[in-house]
Amino acid sequence: MRLRLDLAYDGTDFRGWAKQPGLRTVQGELEAALDTILRTTGTSVTVAGRTDTGVHARGQVVHVDLDEEALVRVAGHGRRTPTEALLRRLNGVVDADLRIHRVAEAAPGFDARFSATWRRYAYRIADNETMFDPLRRSHVVAWQWPLDLDALNEASSLLVGLRDFAAFCKQREGRTTIRTLLDFRWTRDDGILVADVRADAFCHSMVRSLVGCVTAVGQGREDAQWAARVMAGRVRPPDVYVAPAHGLTLEEVGYPSDAELGVQAGLARARRSLDTPDPGQVPPR
Amino acid sequence: MRLRLDLAYDGTDFRGWAKQPGLRTVQGELEAALDTILRTTGTSVTVAGRTDTGVHARGQVVHVDLDEEALVRVAGHGRRTPTEALLRRLNGVVDADLRIHRVAEAAPGFDARFSATWRRYAYRIADNETMFDPLRRSHVVAWQWPLDLDALNEASSLLVGLRDFAAFCKQREGRTTIRTLLDFRWTRDDGILVADVRADAFCHSMVRSLVGCVTAVGQGREDAQWAARVMAGRVRPPDVYVAPAHGLTLEEVGYPSDAELGVQAGLARARRSLDTPDPGQVPPR
Repeated sequence: MRLRLDLAYDGTDFRGWAKQPGLRTVQGELEAALDTILRTTGTSVTVAGRTDTGVHARGQVVHVDLDEEALVRVAGHGRRTPTEALLRRLNGVVDADLRIHRVAEAAPGFDARFSATWRRYAYRIADNETMFDPLRRSHVVAWQWPLDLDALNEASSLLVGLRDFAAFCKQREGRTTIRTLLDFRWTRDDGILVADVRADAFCHSMVRSLVGCVTAVGQGREDAQWAARVMAGRVRPPDVYVAPAHGLTLEEVGYPSDAELGVQAGLARARRSLDTPDPGQVPPR
Repeated sequence: MRLRLDLAYDGTDFRGWAKQPGLRTVQGELEAALDTILRTTGTSVTVAGRTDTGVHARGQVVHVDLDEEALVRVAGHGRRTPTEALLRRLNGVVDADLRIHRVAEAAPGFDARFSATWRRYAYRIADNETMFDPLRRSHVVAWQWPLDLDALNEASSLLVGLRDFAAFCKQREGRTTIRTLLDFRWTRDDGILVADVRADAFCHSMVRSLVGCVTAVGQGREDAQWAARVMAGRVRPPDVYVAPAHGLTLEEVGYPSDAELGVQAGLARARRSLDTPDPGQVPPR
C-alpha cells in the first residue's frame, strides 16, 4: 500500500533533502525512522520537492510504499488507527527540527513527485535593521540595504509565464530548463519582505537565482527591464546573485483531484524525459 | 546623557536577562558590547522587563547613561549620527540572537524601568500535531492535548483587573503581589494559540503561572471558576502548572508621553517600595 506523508522541517541542520552516506539529511532521517518503526530495512520515500542544504519546508509531501501488515503491527491493540499510530511514532523518533504533520493512505495513482501540478516557495528578507527578528533568523535573511517593493514586483512580473529559465538554472545535460512560473509576487508582512514563488516545477537553485536577480532591481542597481534581458540571454550571467538558502521555504505542493491523479503523473513523466526543446518552442516575450 | 535602546532576543541560549558571573546573559552581552565600542568599563543598563532563562523579547527597552564625548567618538568622521553609528556597531559586535532595533537620546525624565506604564507578553502554544512548525519551535510550545479557545478565554477573563496575584507569584519578603492585569486574551493565529497578556507590571513567573492555570481549563480538566478560586486562595497551589519558558515573549513596553514621563516614574517608585497591602485593598471579585 502507498502512504502520503506531509512534513515540515527546519533545514538549518540538514545537508538538504537527498540521502547521502554519513550526512544528516531529511530523507535519511525519515527513511531510518520508518525502518525503525516498521521493523523493515531499505524503506525508500519519493519527494515532491528536493530541497538544498539550508532550505526549509512547511508543506513538503512524500509517498512511501510499504507492507500493510507492517503498518497494522504499528497500531498493535491500541485505539489509534494504523496511520494515526505511525504519525505519533514518527514524531517520537525524529528530532524536533523535522515534524510529520499528516500520514494518510494515498489515493489510487498518487505519486508525490509526478502527480504534483505546482510547488510554492516563500523567500523572506528583512531589509531594515529594526526588523531583524532574532526569533526568525533561521528563515529570514538580513539584507543590508533597503529594497523597494514596487521595483521588486515590477521586475518579478516580467519573469512570469511559460519560459526558458536557463539563465536561472544550473544546466544539466539533456534536461529542459523550460518551466511555467505561475506567480512571483512580493508583499510586506509585518515589515518582512516575502516573495511568493509558484511554478509547475523548479530547476536547481532557480528560486534563489530569481530572487537574487530581482533584488538588484529592488536595490536600484538595475532597472526592471534588466531582469527581462537576463532571462532572454538564456545563460546565467556571473553578476546574478544566488540568494542565501536559509531565506527559502517550500510552503505548499499542489495536486489535482483524486480522479485526475493518474493523468497528471503521466504528463509530468513525459515532460521530464524530453530533451531541451529548441528555442522556437519558447513563447515570445 | 541618557540613551534609550530597543532590543530583541532569542532567549534560547541566554541564562536570562540579569548579569551573572561566568554565564551568558543578555545584560552581560549588551554591557560588554557597550564597553567595547565606547572604550569604557562598567557600563550599566537598566531594563524595562527582566526576563527569565529561555524567555524571548521582541520589544525590550533599556536605558543607559553615558559620556557624550564617548558617543561622539563612535561616529568619528563618518556620515552617520552618533546614535546611528552606535546602533550599527552594536549589531556588529553582538551575536545574531540579540539585535538592537533602535538607539535614541532619551526624553528628559525617561527611565526604562520606572517610566513604563505596562508590559505586554505573548505566550504561544501549538496544540495540534499538524501545527508544530519546526521553524518556530524556539518560541512556540508543543502541547500534547487540544485546548478549547472559548474555555481559555472564559477562564482568563476572570483574572483580569486590579487584584492580588499572590497565587501566581513567587513570593518575596516585603514585596507586594498586587498588580493590574489589563488584558488576558487568547486568539488562534495561523492555527497557533496566542495569549496576549498585558499588565502594569508582572511579578516573577506570573505570566507562565497564569498560562498554566488557564490551560487546565482549556483542556477540560477544570471549569473556569476554578481559575477564580485559585486566585482568591492567594497561595500558589501545587497543582498549578508553570508553563515552559520558551513559549513566552516580551512583545512591547508602554510609556506615557514625554511630558508625563517624570510623573509616572515617581508613582512607580513609590508603589514598588510599599509593603504588601492588607487584603482590604484588593477589590472584591
